[in-house]
Amino acid sequence: MKSLWLENNKIDLRNIPQPRKPNEALIKIRKAGICSTDLELVKGYYPYTGILGHEFVGEVVEAAEASWIGRRVVGEINVVCNQCEQCLNGRPTHCENRTVLGIVNRNGTFAEFTTLPITNLHRVPDSVSDEMAVFTEPLAAALEIQDQINLKPTDRVLLVGAGRLGQLIAQTLALTGCDLRVVARHAHQQNLLKARGIRIVSEEEIQPWRWDVVVEATGSPGGFTLARQAIRPRGTLVLKSTYKGELNVNFSSIVVDEINIIGSRCGPFEPALRLLESGRVDPTVLIEDEFKLDRALEAFERAAQTGVLKVLVEP
Amino acid sequence: MKSLWLENNKIDLRNIPQPRKPNEALIKIRKAGICSTDLELVKGYYPYTGILGHEFVGEVVEAAEASWIGRRVVGEINVVCNQCEQCLNGRPTHCENRTVLGIVNRNGTFAEFTTLPITNLHRVPDSVSDEMAVFTEPLAAALEIQDQINLKPTDRVLLVGAGRLGQLIAQTLALTGCDLRVVARHAHQQNLLKARGIRIVSEEEIQPWRWDVVVEATGSPGGFTLARQAIRPRGTLVLKSTYKGELNVNFSSIVVDEINIIGSRCGPFEPALRLLESGRVDPTVLIEDEFKLDRALEAFERAAQTGVLKVLVEP
Repeated sequence: MKSLWLENNKIDLRNIPQPRKPNEALIKIRKAGICSTDLELVKGYYPYTGILGHEFVGEVVEAAEASWIGRRVVGEINVVCNQCEQCLNGRPTHCENRTVLGIVNRNGTFAEFTTLPITNLHRVPDSVSDEMAVFTEPLAAALEIQDQINLKPTDRVLLVGAGRLGQLIAQTLALTGCDLRVVARHAHQQNLLKARGIRIVSEEEIQPWRWDVVVEATGSPGGFTLARQAIRPRGTLVLKSTYKGELNVNFSSIVVDEINIIGSRCGPFEPALRLLESGRVDPTVLIEDEFKLDRALEAFERAAQTGVLKVLVEP
Repeated sequence: MKSLWLENNKIDLRNIPQPRKPNEALIKIRKAGICSTDLELVKGYYPYTGILGHEFVGEVVEAAEASWIGRRVVGEINVVCNQCEQCLNGRPTHCENRTVLGIVNRNGTFAEFTTLPITNLHRVPDSVSDEMAVFTEPLAAALEIQDQINLKPTDRVLLVGAGRLGQLIAQTLALTGCDLRVVARHAHQQNLLKARGIRIVSEEEIQPWRWDVVVEATGSPGGFTLARQAIRPRGTLVLKSTYKGELNVNFSSIVVDEINIIGSRCGPFEPALRLLESGRVDPTVLIEDEFKLDRALEAFERAAQTGVLKVLVEP
């Protein structure tokens, strides 16, 4: 089958045998999305060799349980052991023996087919289009924030960053009724937010020491500094992106101001699907371009351009 | 009156006029304790000029409300404006206009007298000795942890550091029934803990990635690193000490492991007094030496010796 292969910081199209794993469903990919993590893997920030991609919607073509065959599905990206301390304590996304679709020791979704255990799959409601469903994984990651902290309708919330993930976070935070402001660098990012009635704030306008919750979604040291300055004493600073290398942070001020810093990664799929089904979020406005798998290299070039949001790939 | 004055990183004994503030009670100091913060102020880590000291028990000798006169009291160290956003939102210890006893713009307690607003004072129950009561402030700081996080009896808790504050934290954590282990460097620190049935763990024995809650009470980069390695995914890392300068931290791993880092400072006085009254904690075992105020310089030398716990000063 055709696939987009990453090796030694280089991606190319390769023909490899169609996958077959006895305990996993075979899934025909319908659409896959390019995520910032994919771009970082190509840059070599994390070591990975294999097929890239983890955001997808597909159709089950082979499975031990016949009822799954023909079903349109999305899939959780962490494949877990169910035996380690993390799994046994209800933290499967932190499984100590996990493989991760297109990220850690497991071929991903920029291909004609992929495989996943049936337990990782979620059926996509008929009313949710492929263009919507392909956003389930990043939308779930956005919802992880509300799964981790008690975000109150009375909170003043600042979101720093309005890129691929930031847009989804903004849409879900707005649903809570909180007093949300978003730092968005590019006009297109700003316009998407304004179209949904979400308010923009410029960096200069941000009052320091005043925000109950700050979500940092840029992954840049500058974004972290801005977020740190904005948070109020005893406020909560949610880190939603990874950072290259280490950050220099004044932890004494974290202690004195009793700041709560919380890392946030993969999130729950079912609420993401419910929000897509209800139409309460609309990630399709992020789609900027779509490429056939044959042109996946072009798709990655497009996705890497400044300010570009979602680029989809279709086998 | 006699006082211990800090100026330009130097402490000396000075005779200064007895304080008098129209809206504050005049308190005759009975005993005052030397805290690590005092030693750091002398080293110049924070700028401060004036009388040092913030841990004390005293007697009210003048006050607008006559009922306070003659009362034995301890006092909250943050003197607040009741008008700023932090005060109005129930975070008075984070008052934006605060002065802090012996730390920020307010003369402290290594003196014959000090002053505080009556609203800062708490009466000491008769059954609580001066030697106990002088620990109210640091004991309250220890209890701030339980005020901030839901510490469960089923939690595996690691405390890194068993110095002045660490010992008090260990005593209060042990009351929760949690599975507590303490990293204590010095034999004397270890013996005090063992005498209360609190279990010691060596750095080598600490299982990485296994602890639900880790409390860092050393204020050293090494302590932070140890704490970070010990915490499990989605665990809570409480920072109870300030750090010199900045720390280099890998925040990507904080995001991937979804760690919760929380700074912790001043705490609630009333529960501290209740625990002292009930005898459920006994801070007096920390007392290593006691000096008259005339010999406060010797007292500071003694307190600065490696492994020394509490040194008291009495006017």
